[in-house]
Amino acid sequence: MITGARAAVVLLSGGLDSATCLAMARRDGLSCHALTFDYGQRHKAEIHCAKRLAQSLGAKSHTVYTLDVAPFAGSALTTGGHVPKDRDNPGTGEIPSTYVPARNLVFLSIATAYAETIDVSDVFIGVNTVDYSGYPDCRPEFIDAFSRAAGMATRLGTQGGRPLTIHTPLLRLSKAEIIRAGTDAGVDFALTTSCYDPQFDERGPIACGRCDACILRWRGFEAAGLTDPARYLENV
Amino acid sequence: MITGARAAVVLLSGGLDSATCLAMARRDGLSCHALTFDYGQRHKAEIHCAKRLAQSLGAKSHTVYTLDVAPFAGSALTTGGHVPKDRDNPGTGEIPSTYVPARNLVFLSIATAYAETIDVSDVFIGVNTVDYSGYPDCRPEFIDAFSRAAGMATRLGTQGGRPLTIHTPLLRLSKAEIIRAGTDAGVDFALTTSCYDPQFDERGPIACGRCDACILRWRGFEAAGLTDPARYLENV
Repeated sequence: MITGARAAVVLLSGGLDSATCLAMARRDGLSCHALTFDYGQRHKAEIHCAKRLAQSLGAKSHTVYTLDVAPFAGSALTTGGHVPKDRDNPGTGEIPSTYVPARNLVFLSIATAYAETIDVSDVFIGVNTVDYSGYPDCRPEFIDAFSRAAGMATRLGTQGGRPLTIHTPLLRLSKAEIIRAGTDAGVDFALTTSCYDPQFDERGPIACGRCDACILRWRGFEAAGLTDPARYLENV
Repeated sequence: MITGARAAVVLLSGGLDSATCLAMARRDGLSCHALTFDYGQRHKAEIHCAKRLAQSLGAKSHTVYTLDVAPFAGSALTTGGHVPKDRDNPGTGEIPSTYVPARNLVFLSIATAYAETIDVSDVFIGVNTVDYSGYPDCRPEFIDAFSRAAGMATRLGTQGGRPLTIHTPLLRLSKAEIIRAGTDAGVDFALTTSCYDPQFDERGPIACGRCDACILRWRGFEAAGLTDPARYLENV
């Protein structure tokens, strides 16, 4: 629970983690300015879902920020490269090909600039250690280091105001715990997408069911004892 | 002098600091990938000068990265607001209206992502304590904190590679020392622009001579015992 701050910037990807993060911030009474990055990711499904989630969860505003990723070429998420499927160990091991260089560093930096512009001192991001999945900029020590840097980069932190704070309410939660927390906070998970390689029809995205993100999601719902309301290729 | 690294990313604004920074990196034998941000700043003159400088100083490549600054509205540099003129104390005091929220945080984050993409571990930025001029993200402690965060955000730093390093060769130099260092390293300062409110003709930018940046520049050349080859409104 945050006291004293009535507004926050919440990074919203359209996935279940950021949806839960937004729902938790809303439940705590915060006026939430959702921020979604359109960076040419293959899953335009994310933008579609983010818009539905921002509305469903009562975000005060929703900004879709277009980011040129030409300098960040090389990720399977943006270049049409091979997305790994049917991996047994999606949460461990080396950095996968879906890694976008320094993505959270760039996203959080822009979120910081946006927060300062609208006089908000609190930024929420739904990273967690399961989601780490080999991405270096999902680690708690990165978030801590970024918070320090961001606090120093802004006017808020240097003119007597409250310095910028990065909130990561999901950091230590398992995927199952996130799904339970999101359910408690009122997330409609049918509105979320996780798949790295979804198809798309007039009703929205259809998950492949086989990429790392689908496997982690499926295991999370199973461990939470809940049914995933998302549509999967094998069911449609 | 850097050993073991043959390539670097150099932030190049078109001003005299970043031009000197690039010239110093080139003199040290580095293959330099210059990176300029087009963020809607009023001084398009900067882009013009950055292109001439990259060529003049033998940059290996030059990327002009377009950044949407709609979320960072509010600075006199991007909105057409009032640029302060004829201030006696341009290097001191409160944060001026030319401040762009968290600008160096965003620039360095994108430079980090770009560096990782092209497998470069060294990023140069020409910030210095004189240029601080009230901008919180020009302070040495911000650069240190950012370096830590960036080192953790990247693949390079987590898979046995050399972590990303932010180099600030001008950090402790006065404007006069920077001008002398740039002269020694071969910068043609006629190709640089500093003015926050320049006019522009077919030969390039014409400085106002009265904004904070012009005053700091003029004092620097005077202290260095050199003549500024830039064009000023009162001379053209």
